Amino acid sequence: MTLSPDEFRKRIRTGMHTGPTSGFCNGFVQANLAILPKEDAFEFLLFCQRNPKACPVIDVTDIGSPVPKLSASGADIRTDLPKYRVYRNGELVDEPSDLMDYWQENLVAFLIGCSFTFEEALIRNGIPMRHNEEGVNVPMYRTSLETVPAGKFSGPTVVSMRPIRNEDVVRAVQVTSRFPSVHGAPVHIGKPEEIGIRNLSRPDYGDSVTVRDGETPVFWACGVTPQAVAMHTKPGLMITHAPGHMFVTDLKTERLGVI
Amino acid sequence: MTLSPDEFRKRIRTGMHTGPTSGFCNGFVQANLAILPKEDAFEFLLFCQRNPKACPVIDVTDIGSPVPKLSASGADIRTDLPKYRVYRNGELVDEPSDLMDYWQENLVAFLIGCSFTFEEALIRNGIPMRHNEEGVNVPMYRTSLETVPAGKFSGPTVVSMRPIRNEDVVRAVQVTSRFPSVHGAPVHIGKPEEIGIRNLSRPDYGDSVTVRDGETPVFWACGVTPQAVAMHTKPGLMITHAPGHMFVTDLKTERLGVI
Repeated sequence: MTLSPDEFRKRIRTGMHTGPTSGFCNGFVQANLAILPKEDAFEFLLFCQRNPKACPVIDVTDIGSPVPKLSASGADIRTDLPKYRVYRNGELVDEPSDLMDYWQENLVAFLIGCSFTFEEALIRNGIPMRHNEEGVNVPMYRTSLETVPAGKFSGPTVVSMRPIRNEDVVRAVQVTSRFPSVHGAPVHIGKPEEIGIRNLSRPDYGDSVTVRDGETPVFWACGVTPQAVAMHTKPGLMITHAPGHMFVTDLKTERLGVI
Repeated sequence: MTLSPDEFRKRIRTGMHTGPTSGFCNGFVQANLAILPKEDAFEFLLFCQRNPKACPVIDVTDIGSPVPKLSASGADIRTDLPKYRVYRNGELVDEPSDLMDYWQENLVAFLIGCSFTFEEALIRNGIPMRHNEEGVNVPMYRTSLETVPAGKFSGPTVVSMRPIRNEDVVRAVQVTSRFPSVHGAPVHIGKPEEIGIRNLSRPDYGDSVTVRDGETPVFWACGVTPQAVAMHTKPGLMITHAPGHMFVTDLKTERLGVI
């Protein structure tokens, strides 16, 4: 697809695109969304700051503003994602295609880096993604790696796993290290049991994928972490993107490379 | 000096060290301090997040806690810096050697990366610091580079300048790029007038240094920026370190290298 992020968001806004965003606007950063009331905003931002691998902040809107002005100044967070999830007191209550009925003047939207971005970089380096090959979601696991708490926010780090050919593991570390704002370097290489994962074939989120002989499971911190942690506090209102239905920013992926 | 950060902070806490911290605990990260009431904490943290080159956050204390638990879990921010500055409504009212009379349950302490750290890296690469050679403070300038505002916080970026031999400019960019959490890569190379600096020999803060033939002035975002910006809002109470009297963390400088 050769749509620009602005054109793609316009298609979403006008109801012409309603599905997942994977594979669209390659080369541009896609982001996880978490919307919370301003009362929770400082502690949640602090939680992200303390856990930058799991919660790399791409952009935060001003209180009450639906415009992510640093990452997509022409966008509206209320209408420019294909599908949302609305939680009240930790319970999923709605899955709307826009937030015009839910937006309030006290809300703050957090855009958090997403693994699509570093996967692109791995693929460009000839390191394939097994979950793409098998046509499923990436496997994700709750681990024994505790996040650093901030106020009411705490809980385990969730990781995603990608099997990497043994001879490519070092390169996978190098390639993803360049991108700390989209989860960056792995948090663990090899032995799943060392980070509290009992059974690699039974992920907590997403789908199981094949790990072949000559491959090592490599684990990256996952954007599900902040959502899981925020949900655990059962905020009165919390809104997220629906899985796979991300926010597409105007930021070029390569511009996030730290060196 | 071979004191550990813990030993050095203990000397400060007990009044045995009262001067600047430069040259002590080499290899460990030193940080700027800004303390604000919790009412301002979200917008200030957001300001830092939006301006990571000028305001790289090293650690933020929990509301009311004087312990920077991620960067020095055995330290106390109220006693472990040699000298502080207390501002009320933007006016300097005191320069105490501890904060026991000023600390309140509603305060949040921000530790922000400091250029001492990347200067060490440059020196290790054979790139000398002119202000050290001349025994003065680094020259700093207000620029025409606006920060990205967050709520009440806005203002110009303040930069520090170091003359670099022309043949070392590329290496200086490489070396400091590794350390985004201590201001990272330069914001500008060469022509001062392009960033609104009229006269290189008249810095707004610090001292003038000699720029020799065959050298290029290179500009880095400076930790004075967040203090200047916060001061501009004239908060009821704001506390900072006194210039040069920094907080010494337990973090090894090299661990901040992103790759």
